[in-house]
Amino acid sequence: MNIAVVGLGIIGGSFAKALKKYTDHHIIGINRTQSVLEIALEEKAIDEIGTEESLKTADVVILALYPQAAISFIEKNGQHIKKGAIVTDSSGIKREICPRMVELSKQFGFEFVGSHPMAGKETNGFESSEAELFEGASYIITPCEASGEAVRTLSDLALKMRFGTIKITDPEEHDRMIAFTSQLPHVLACAYVLSPCCLNHKGFSAGSYKDVSRVANINAVLWSELFLENREPLIKELDTLIDNIHAITDAVKANDKEAIEQLLEAAHKTKEKLGE
Amino acid sequence: MNIAVVGLGIIGGSFAKALKKYTDHHIIGINRTQSVLEIALEEKAIDEIGTEESLKTADVVILALYPQAAISFIEKNGQHIKKGAIVTDSSGIKREICPRMVELSKQFGFEFVGSHPMAGKETNGFESSEAELFEGASYIITPCEASGEAVRTLSDLALKMRFGTIKITDPEEHDRMIAFTSQLPHVLACAYVLSPCCLNHKGFSAGSYKDVSRVANINAVLWSELFLENREPLIKELDTLIDNIHAITDAVKANDKEAIEQLLEAAHKTKEKLGE
Repeated sequence: MNIAVVGLGIIGGSFAKALKKYTDHHIIGINRTQSVLEIALEEKAIDEIGTEESLKTADVVILALYPQAAISFIEKNGQHIKKGAIVTDSSGIKREICPRMVELSKQFGFEFVGSHPMAGKETNGFESSEAELFEGASYIITPCEASGEAVRTLSDLALKMRFGTIKITDPEEHDRMIAFTSQLPHVLACAYVLSPCCLNHKGFSAGSYKDVSRVANINAVLWSELFLENREPLIKELDTLIDNIHAITDAVKANDKEAIEQLLEAAHKTKEKLGE
Repeated sequence: MNIAVVGLGIIGGSFAKALKKYTDHHIIGINRTQSVLEIALEEKAIDEIGTEESLKTADVVILALYPQAAISFIEKNGQHIKKGAIVTDSSGIKREICPRMVELSKQFGFEFVGSHPMAGKETNGFESSEAELFEGASYIITPCEASGEAVRTLSDLALKMRFGTIKITDPEEHDRMIAFTSQLPHVLACAYVLSPCCLNHKGFSAGSYKDVSRVANINAVLWSELFLENREPLIKELDTLIDNIHAITDAVKANDKEAIEQLLEAAHKTKEKLGE
């Protein structure tokens, strides 16, 4: 197949590299900055630099752009996409993206399948991309109105790129769960490192500081967009988190050892149930 | 030297194994449960099972017990400790422990040096201990009233056990920093996994969930004791954390992208300054 990867940042770059490494498909690279395309071509992460013409030859179009940029790209270039081609996004929110993409798919005659690769790094850009980024990770698919065949084609590609799990869901459940598994840890890590103590932590810290603070090394522009695009589920999780921290804080303030133990034991039991 | 390690859990067991592996000192093991001592002897983690008599021969006594248990041990066995011997604890709080230990050191004629090895695991017990546990970790020393020579002896032992950093401080700074680097991440991880979403996270999560939730696999009894023994510094950090989460939450509720970006960017800058 001809596969166009649009946006050669860490995610798009890794898609291109993984597809080149693990499949024989022909990879078309599309990116705003020309210099990145030339590097990608030189590194054989892509087979050709995309044009309106080559976009027409793509059987699968993988968008690896910020959510709003993904929609704008299709609004602008939809007419160059082959009828019946499969188009997928990679964005971390789905309720905002999928309905509009389904509209556009009808307007331009392609099939839209929502997807979200659960992988990343603290660093960004093509230079951070790697063929192994998706090794064992989860690939979430929100089929929306796409055919079973389109969904299968995409899951097969994901498994070839070494994803470990394919999770099929709907935009609502996706966004509710992602608010907890992805956005909340980012809020939490940022709130944590904003303590005045943080800049003096060296020599006093071990694994727990390192792990909890890691994702505070954040792309503020991307994540503030993601937070607002997933506002309601995120607010619900934030309110729950604040309640739970308050419960522990109140027990500490009240010197109530039993209450603290019960709260910590409930957390411990949750991890045990999950086999973590 | 003869070194007595009291309490062969993960920390004490790792001290014994590291001392056996990296030094030629004679290791005396003391532990409440006899069966653990026999295993430790069989595994050559210790050279002998301690008695009141052999405790008298120890030049260094390393306590690897819960804070209150460490004090009780010395109150009960202080008279069997050699005059001039170095005694150190390993507890995660210092203001509660050091003054009382200094009193006891005067009563029984030994030298007390507070210490805190910044290493651990989610699992506990001798079976989780390993000679490499301290590899590159930080060893915090609160000299209190001990001589420079006693502090040097202890730091030399720590470096032989492969600690990467020796941090000399006082009980107040220790407890203030530990509230942030160690206790706060544990509160935060527990509060996080208490979300109703947590039990359904599989397939929706990636590194950020894993890292932020790791230490929620907690020893509820030990940590509720640590929280209360470091109550004031912890409460201060908890209030700061809640304020920072509120700031981000309010910006999300107010749909204020700029305010969110500023808060996330402040966090990002902190990690950058720290070279993390």
